[in-house]
Amino acid sequence: MTDTSTTTELETTIDTYVSSWNETDPTGRAALVAAVWSAEGRHLDPLGDVTGHDGIDAHLAGVQEHYPDHRVERTSAVDTHHDRFRFTWRFVAPDGSVVVTATDVGELDPAGRIHRVDCFFGDPAPLPE
Amino acid sequence: MTDTSTTTELETTIDTYVSSWNETDPTGRAALVAAVWSAEGRHLDPLGDVTGHDGIDAHLAGVQEHYPDHRVERTSAVDTHHDRFRFTWRFVAPDGSVVVTATDVGELDPAGRIHRVDCFFGDPAPLPE
Repeated sequence: MTDTSTTTELETTIDTYVSSWNETDPTGRAALVAAVWSAEGRHLDPLGDVTGHDGIDAHLAGVQEHYPDHRVERTSAVDTHHDRFRFTWRFVAPDGSVVVTATDVGELDPAGRIHRVDCFFGDPAPLPE
Repeated sequence: MTDTSTTTELETTIDTYVSSWNETDPTGRAALVAAVWSAEGRHLDPLGDVTGHDGIDAHLAGVQEHYPDHRVERTSAVDTHHDRFRFTWRFVAPDGSVVVTATDVGELDPAGRIHRVDCFFGDPAPLPE
């Protein structure tokens, strides 16, 4: 499922995105967000719906304030087809415990910046018996 | 992660969507596609990128022609937040063997019809050692 010709560039983009979640210096964080997101980029997760560089940066700042010294770590390769991507990650507390696992599915803009991320926590629930 | 107040309606929508993959009567299939998709709906999977009722119906017809008597079966509950959803499914051959497993992530329009489905096969690959 992976187009190896573009994996390196896309993985760099995703790793920059992950770095933005872990960068607590406001200037550095804003620079990472601006580098990796399109101007109208939108991030949705179960806890929020934010659009644009300022909205996304404020969301990251809020998470960092509520979860000091926690880190986002990518836990899979980056799967891609067309202009879409998918990868898994985990949110890790300072003591090493995993607070949540998640899957991000997103879309790139024509310049290769992130246009949308839809984040889901955990795995889908099994079917009822 | 599931908003139980809307699960029933959303699950009905998703089950109708799954039924459209399994309906080989052209008139019936087109009716299911029209019922469940917005007019400008877009379906992307690793093998195709189709838009609109006619494009989506033609994609289903093509899959049915190449894989006679195969069936799509939903394999998880439908996870949802905001206007997004996620579920897993499998594509099953007449002898019961699983041809592929997949995850669909999508967006609903304001009327509750499907606006977008991004489909990924299998699970994301593990990180390199």
